[in-house]
Amino acid sequence: MTSYTHETVPTQFVEANGIRYAYRRFGKPDTIPLLFLEYFNSNMDGWDPDVTNSLAAHHEVILFDNAGVGASGGKTPNMVAEMTKQFVAFCRALGLKQIHVVGFSLGGMIAQQLALEHPQLVGRLILLGTGPRGGEDMTFTELSAEEQADPVAFLLGAFFSPSEASQAAGREYMKRLESRKNDRDLPVSRDSAVAQLTAIREWGTIPATGRYATLKSITHPTLIVHGNKDIVVTPINAFILAEHLPNAQLIMYPDSSHGAFYQHRKAFLEHVRIFLSDGDSAVPDQNSIKSSVA
Amino acid sequence: MTSYTHETVPTQFVEANGIRYAYRRFGKPDTIPLLFLEYFNSNMDGWDPDVTNSLAAHHEVILFDNAGVGASGGKTPNMVAEMTKQFVAFCRALGLKQIHVVGFSLGGMIAQQLALEHPQLVGRLILLGTGPRGGEDMTFTELSAEEQADPVAFLLGAFFSPSEASQAAGREYMKRLESRKNDRDLPVSRDSAVAQLTAIREWGTIPATGRYATLKSITHPTLIVHGNKDIVVTPINAFILAEHLPNAQLIMYPDSSHGAFYQHRKAFLEHVRIFLSDGDSAVPDQNSIKSSVA
Repeated sequence: MTSYTHETVPTQFVEANGIRYAYRRFGKPDTIPLLFLEYFNSNMDGWDPDVTNSLAAHHEVILFDNAGVGASGGKTPNMVAEMTKQFVAFCRALGLKQIHVVGFSLGGMIAQQLALEHPQLVGRLILLGTGPRGGEDMTFTELSAEEQADPVAFLLGAFFSPSEASQAAGREYMKRLESRKNDRDLPVSRDSAVAQLTAIREWGTIPATGRYATLKSITHPTLIVHGNKDIVVTPINAFILAEHLPNAQLIMYPDSSHGAFYQHRKAFLEHVRIFLSDGDSAVPDQNSIKSSVA
Repeated sequence: MTSYTHETVPTQFVEANGIRYAYRRFGKPDTIPLLFLEYFNSNMDGWDPDVTNSLAAHHEVILFDNAGVGASGGKTPNMVAEMTKQFVAFCRALGLKQIHVVGFSLGGMIAQQLALEHPQLVGRLILLGTGPRGGEDMTFTELSAEEQADPVAFLLGAFFSPSEASQAAGREYMKRLESRKNDRDLPVSRDSAVAQLTAIREWGTIPATGRYATLKSITHPTLIVHGNKDIVVTPINAFILAEHLPNAQLIMYPDSSHGAFYQHRKAFLEHVRIFLSDGDSAVPDQNSIKSSVA
């Protein structure tokens, strides 16, 4: 298994509650796996191979398509809570006892819901370009199910800032997305995209009472990563998460939009390494730290 | 010079414009020095020896007292802009051509003013627990010049959160502050503290027009570090800096107040290392990054 990469790992399937889920599993065996939960309208091929391969050096990596997405069977539900249930069924079918979750945008919403409802299944959370339930400007009026009509324009416009440096990073990112040549995932259907959009809009609706109240119950060590010019999930949402989650570290990158962690992936990969290697908690154990100078 | 540490480096003096400035200089020679600008009512002994010694392994470190502070002569001015002028005079007296600035709270205000007025003198900025000119809730109504009457209570209350973990980190920090036994700095006088307080309150006053307008002119690679429960400089100020500075990365630590970077110094020192080692820019050069998997 260790010899596989993002490019070469075969797509596998597992069945749970009558749904056949597509996934790819590679990286370092006998570690707590990193489960990658993808963004709106994307499939397993949407992850940057540089990021997955780099993380696979120290962790098992599992990419998957939730119900109704890409090569997976079933129907995409129109609620984040339902998507979370299906994700849990998938984890159980694979016999996973504990996972770290890397959730990007919609994936980060599922990650939060999972941490709330199944806290024992989650080790650590990495929340990328996402926001809390009922966050600021999270009804996504700019998004539509037709984004796939011109994915290049969508990604350069939404994932990267207008600066020359960011646009150049975007073009490199899109080249890397093509590095897997065979056994590509299936496209996301319009029905699935429509259901996802309904789900994220419901998630983003401001509740009548108790806005942000559930966040204090997510006590897992959490790394929040966001772009300071994210035009999809406005950056204040990352700040709100960092304010309300009891054990979350926030990192915000400059001159970057929804794909900030791809644009700044060199720093991002180092930041993730530090976060994941930090023993049992994001709060360093003061007793274990020795002065660096005798 | 390399054999000196925070604990053993002798205090030196240099004169500029009739003022005799106290400073301590140690660490790796022939590097761009890290200039440490201290917080309200503190002197060279206020820096955590673990932080300064760790950074001194790869950079020259210069601690100093601005005019009227601690062992330095002269009178503390009551404007950040005046403090900045004196700091520049000190740098010129030492013949420094370029510096990285580590500014904590008041020190971070001077760092911003310096970057605006003398951009060529500054390589990189590290802004700790500080905020922009005219930031949110930055008139510091809780602070007084009498804080030194009970420094233990002040530091545990303002630098660390009420949690047990944070308070324990605070006690360890205060123990480390005592590791330098000889040639301690002189206390900050009441007159100096009063002038500093006037200066930070003036800095924090919201201007009639153009709030945050100058931040776009500070193009230096910048690392902003803040505690998510900072009760001295409210955390939204760090977010505002990250929003408006063109090339700033924000890191916010959990369960921590004004001394967040001391509480989380293991992660902080790694984050600073990554930031300072990142070539010419906080934005990674995309062309220099190779896929981690061939």
